[in-house]
Amino acid sequence: MTATSAERVARAELLRATEPASPGIVRHVREVGAEQAVNDIRRRAPIGGVDVDALAMRLLDHDGERDLAAAANLGARLVCPGDEEWPPGLADLESVGADCFALWVRGSFPLIEVCERAVAIVGTRVATDYGLTIATDLGADLSDRGWTVVSGLAYGIDAAAHRGSLAAGGPTIAVLACGVDVAYPKAHGGLYESVIANGLGVSEHPPGAAPHRTRFLVRNRLIAALSLGTVVVEAAPRSGARSTARHAGELFRHVMAFPGPITSSTSAGCHQLLRDRPDTVLVTKVDEVLELLGAMGEFAERVSGPVRRQDLLGPTVSRVLDAVPVVKPAPTQRIAATAGMRLDAVTAGLAALAASGLVEHAENGWRMTLLGRAERRAEADRGAELPLGWW
Amino acid sequence: MTATSAERVARAELLRATEPASPGIVRHVREVGAEQAVNDIRRRAPIGGVDVDALAMRLLDHDGERDLAAAANLGARLVCPGDEEWPPGLADLESVGADCFALWVRGSFPLIEVCERAVAIVGTRVATDYGLTIATDLGADLSDRGWTVVSGLAYGIDAAAHRGSLAAGGPTIAVLACGVDVAYPKAHGGLYESVIANGLGVSEHPPGAAPHRTRFLVRNRLIAALSLGTVVVEAAPRSGARSTARHAGELFRHVMAFPGPITSSTSAGCHQLLRDRPDTVLVTKVDEVLELLGAMGEFAERVSGPVRRQDLLGPTVSRVLDAVPVVKPAPTQRIAATAGMRLDAVTAGLAALAASGLVEHAENGWRMTLLGRAERRAEADRGAELPLGWW
Repeated sequence: MTATSAERVARAELLRATEPASPGIVRHVREVGAEQAVNDIRRRAPIGGVDVDALAMRLLDHDGERDLAAAANLGARLVCPGDEEWPPGLADLESVGADCFALWVRGSFPLIEVCERAVAIVGTRVATDYGLTIATDLGADLSDRGWTVVSGLAYGIDAAAHRGSLAAGGPTIAVLACGVDVAYPKAHGGLYESVIANGLGVSEHPPGAAPHRTRFLVRNRLIAALSLGTVVVEAAPRSGARSTARHAGELFRHVMAFPGPITSSTSAGCHQLLRDRPDTVLVTKVDEVLELLGAMGEFAERVSGPVRRQDLLGPTVSRVLDAVPVVKPAPTQRIAATAGMRLDAVTAGLAALAASGLVEHAENGWRMTLLGRAERRAEADRGAELPLGWW
Repeated sequence: MTATSAERVARAELLRATEPASPGIVRHVREVGAEQAVNDIRRRAPIGGVDVDALAMRLLDHDGERDLAAAANLGARLVCPGDEEWPPGLADLESVGADCFALWVRGSFPLIEVCERAVAIVGTRVATDYGLTIATDLGADLSDRGWTVVSGLAYGIDAAAHRGSLAAGGPTIAVLACGVDVAYPKAHGGLYESVIANGLGVSEHPPGAAPHRTRFLVRNRLIAALSLGTVVVEAAPRSGARSTARHAGELFRHVMAFPGPITSSTSAGCHQLLRDRPDTVLVTKVDEVLELLGAMGEFAERVSGPVRRQDLLGPTVSRVLDAVPVVKPAPTQRIAATAGMRLDAVTAGLAALAASGLVEHAENGWRMTLLGRAERRAEADRGAELPLGWW
């Protein structure tokens, strides 16, 4: 159901008031809805774990109507959960408690369509020629194959990825840490115009908002959530690109990294990812990226008949599900060993599966629910290949 | 028990007659022993699957006594199974049917001691400066930490690894595809002299033997078997280094690879290894190599009391063992999923474990034997941390 006008205004105000959305306010919006939550903020009603005064202050001189009008003036719009344009992948943010309340979007394509086959390309601002060449070529190659490039318009790898995509016709999505009317960095004003003309500018921040340090970090989770996988091209050992990769892993997206010379500090972050996170895949060309992601697209096309809950889970949660025993409960650690995945990713995946009603906790372990078993059996009956963990 | 003089002569003759040792002759030597096998070859008795005439021809003008005398003249010796100097790791070759009958050794250190903490460094002959620098530094760093470098004396990565080791004092082992009196390539005559003076020259081929193409490939399995892990520094997609890495994997040794620029064809083989073999670990410095191998050395020092069968298995077979259920048999595929290992490696590991009497096949799956369970319990009682796969 498309968001009502009042809901839309409330969500615009939520985006302005909550930066970033704390667990308390996320919980409250889930419980009472956006409109009631904004009412509670405005009348400074106590909300558990939330500094309501601080939130209310941010709404003192503003209202959502004005943000919506300003956006309309620039040809931008607010896309809300329930809207046709709302990408289903953003719901995955809820499983990690990092809900996206709505998105300001600028550009003429429907967000949901541009995101359907999207890859994030991220990396350091102080990229080398090596990284810039990889990012540009990868952006162009992905566009040639019909994939959208998602990135953050920053110096270095981000800009190269957008430019590569645009050179091959796009579309590309720039996810901003400021308003969709603010090009940041300023030197990328022309690039941003091209992105808008051949793709989308996307942000949680209201028109006119300036980029802040915290906004960059919160933004990274959107880059991960809007794509099916994140490719890190060059990254220093502690970098924003690694934060995007971490978000991608938590959201059960594919994480990929390009190798480089061990003598290059801008490849050290990629090598660290490949060593520390066994689910990170080393890639050296577009074919290898699409080999990993492509199966999903083909799978989506191949499926007919009723949509099954586990189709909606994404590849990594499915991998967790495959490792959950049918009858005798197994502890999380054993499931992680079976799935060949990190413990924290499995913990998050099990929580998501429990929320979907496919698994349950019993006798100090996890097992399938009757629902999960029925869906698995139905899948086997349809001739699907049984996964490794199935016994 | 040290090999007798007659056994020693027979094994020298076996090394001369069998190149490479075919499954048929390996089986026959296992069944009747070296002396009888050589007698059978000399009198051209039929041996299943073996072209006995061809083998006998190679012994027409030669005998083992003469090879032993020639070796003694150069200060070389024949090290046989059962000799004090025989490295126990060579027994792993038997599990893949590639038995080593004996080794010609030149240099003053006992082979078993030099191999105790040994790492193979391998790679392309047409190395770049990038690879040569890595190999030299790694060789030196390993030597500094008390580790032996094993390689093949070839141009490129091999020579750089030996030189790095020697610069830091060695010891280093050159495994040759020719006699231990033949420096190949000739340009490495001086390097080989240094290797002999500060380490060992090792070969299956009799004194005077020239290097052949097949000898290089068969030699690679010895490089893998004589070390606890193989590091590939630079390699083309199809290269001898990849063959050594494959042998290392089959022998349950650690396989490591250095990343490099995706634009470098000499790093493409490393990237391919890291993509194709999930058990290959990306490394960028000596600490990461020793992080993987070091645990074994420390473990060996920590163990007191009776030697347990599984201590002798090596890390990869132990990993398979950890994934074998105690009571209810699991199919190989499930054990592979639990261990997070490739199916073929697990199949080989299970065969090795079955041969040790630690696991058994039952009801279409594998489980621990009573012996395996008793040893595992004893280990747990001694306070060892339970592995992931243990339940």
